[in-house]
Amino acid sequence: MQTLTVDLGDRSYPIHIGAGLLARGDLIVPHLAQKRVMVVTNTTVAPLYLAQLTATLEGAGVQVASVVLPDGEAYKTWETLNLIFDALLTERAERKTTLIALGGGVIGDMTGFAAACYQRGVPFIQIPTTLLSQVDSSVGGKTGINHPLGKNMIGAFYQPKAVLADTDTLKTLPPRELSAGLAEVIKYGLIWDAEFLGWLEANMEKLRALDPVAIAHAIYRSCEIKAQVVAQDEREGGLRAILNLGHTFGHAIETGMGYGNWLHGEAVAAGMVLAAQTSQRLGWIAEADVARTRTLIRAAGLPDVAPDLGFEKYLEYMGHDKKVEGGKMRFVLLKKLGEAVITGDVPHDVLSGVLARPH
Amino acid sequence: MQTLTVDLGDRSYPIHIGAGLLARGDLIVPHLAQKRVMVVTNTTVAPLYLAQLTATLEGAGVQVASVVLPDGEAYKTWETLNLIFDALLTERAERKTTLIALGGGVIGDMTGFAAACYQRGVPFIQIPTTLLSQVDSSVGGKTGINHPLGKNMIGAFYQPKAVLADTDTLKTLPPRELSAGLAEVIKYGLIWDAEFLGWLEANMEKLRALDPVAIAHAIYRSCEIKAQVVAQDEREGGLRAILNLGHTFGHAIETGMGYGNWLHGEAVAAGMVLAAQTSQRLGWIAEADVARTRTLIRAAGLPDVAPDLGFEKYLEYMGHDKKVEGGKMRFVLLKKLGEAVITGDVPHDVLSGVLARPH
Repeated sequence: MQTLTVDLGDRSYPIHIGAGLLARGDLIVPHLAQKRVMVVTNTTVAPLYLAQLTATLEGAGVQVASVVLPDGEAYKTWETLNLIFDALLTERAERKTTLIALGGGVIGDMTGFAAACYQRGVPFIQIPTTLLSQVDSSVGGKTGINHPLGKNMIGAFYQPKAVLADTDTLKTLPPRELSAGLAEVIKYGLIWDAEFLGWLEANMEKLRALDPVAIAHAIYRSCEIKAQVVAQDEREGGLRAILNLGHTFGHAIETGMGYGNWLHGEAVAAGMVLAAQTSQRLGWIAEADVARTRTLIRAAGLPDVAPDLGFEKYLEYMGHDKKVEGGKMRFVLLKKLGEAVITGDVPHDVLSGVLARPH
Repeated sequence: MQTLTVDLGDRSYPIHIGAGLLARGDLIVPHLAQKRVMVVTNTTVAPLYLAQLTATLEGAGVQVASVVLPDGEAYKTWETLNLIFDALLTERAERKTTLIALGGGVIGDMTGFAAACYQRGVPFIQIPTTLLSQVDSSVGGKTGINHPLGKNMIGAFYQPKAVLADTDTLKTLPPRELSAGLAEVIKYGLIWDAEFLGWLEANMEKLRALDPVAIAHAIYRSCEIKAQVVAQDEREGGLRAILNLGHTFGHAIETGMGYGNWLHGEAVAAGMVLAAQTSQRLGWIAEADVARTRTLIRAAGLPDVAPDLGFEKYLEYMGHDKKVEGGKMRFVLLKKLGEAVITGDVPHDVLSGVLARPH
């Protein structure tokens, strides 16, 4: 097991990464204000891991209640969130009751937001069970739900007390979702660390085969990079926006194709190719860099060609993104491989060249 | 105009108190990150003050959108909150768009919570138009909505950038609501300041007649006391609980009688009498202190006898209150007039003596 500390002053917390962590009550109990928890999970994860986690916690003398939500981004809504509140109030959960998120990003986001709001704030612990949530939701404190008019439009910045990334849970993850998680891993290399990018190129096969040493390193380094960025900009004023490489385009893809048809990671992968192409047209990176990016994305089992939504639709869907400021779109692009840059200065013809007919 | 600063480090903000403040764009504009606001108000307040506030803001070059919610505690729900999100998203409000709450406590609580959640946090300014909200919601950062299973169960601690308490708006307040506000004013005297309590006894008639000097002083001193308490305990770990004098009983009364039938201030007034009676039975205050409390409450036009819900119902409704900890009820009582104390040690027979048949 490796442990990384996310350094946020009095809200610092550990991320434990390794195999067999669902059996480690000793990693959870020290963070409980009261030996009472509410586990929030979904219909896919519950049959796989809820009994095991419950046994671990009860073995450590913790009173466990649970609520099982329907699975999927389509349920990242107020109605589903309210099922958590219903359960908490029915159980008469108190301010010291800890919520535990057991599942992927949707469960993490909703549980974190429920924890931020229930009685104006109760503690929570994350046990992400997908690669995407292990490398993304583990760090940053972003929680929330979708609104019919936009993704993640309602939420809070709220930090967990601890994160347990059990790499064993990835064994039950469908390969398509593993690939989606690898999109975010690749992102960290692209925006921050050319050496890590090279390591990913050399180890992509091992990662897809869930080699335990390789996968733990990929998670550790991804969380480490994200933590470095977030520590410098917790509330998303500036630098943190680089974490959105591929996301402005990706959100447009997800919206345009209908939530849930493209996985978030798939949309981000294709979005990162669009960002690389835009960066190349601006003269910042070479054709060969774009090609290298696409090769790695394909090696991870991800799409490297964005859907053709039409240029106007792309602009419309991107306009609703949170990265809009003063009515002007801002883009996260690549100055070189391993270094991101944020800019509002993308000429219309460059943008239309990339988006009018993605290729 | 008087100005009080609520001292919360980098989240400090001013409360301006006085007549004619709705005309003072200069008190608002310096707090805007962008000259764009969304005013949130309700069907009662909009016809009275929305045009005036809009004119003031537009006169200062601010782009104003507004959303008018149905009026009343019954609408302090997710469905109504969502009308604010709908408006923000339809207007494509950005992260620097400021929300302005124009109305009473319900508007303030919902607008503050919407601001806390929209895109994970946008700025907001409060313009409370009832006495209750001027002396209560102005300080403390509590925002939220009700859940069918409990009041204020979902929310956030979130501070405004500024508060404008325009005493002119009290002229259109129904006398019953003015009295409800006075219940909270009396509470500050009871828990913190015997001298202020004496001043209230001497000036109650002036306050009910809205004497401008008297009412401004009452608001100022109430906010000052609340700010002193909150500054010592922003997230409600300990001391802050004394602000709930009468509220645990009051919540039970509101629940038992059905939300909205007793005004919050009326329930708190009767609840403070129950707290005083409990304190007297514990030997902390004298019969004469209870009588003095009741006289002042009656002089403010408030009920000094709680409804007879039955002892068991009182216990049941109080059990859902947020002041429950470790399954044990905790009470805010009076050590003497002007000094509150928090205790979990109230013998069953003392409680039943007060609650079994309130008198």
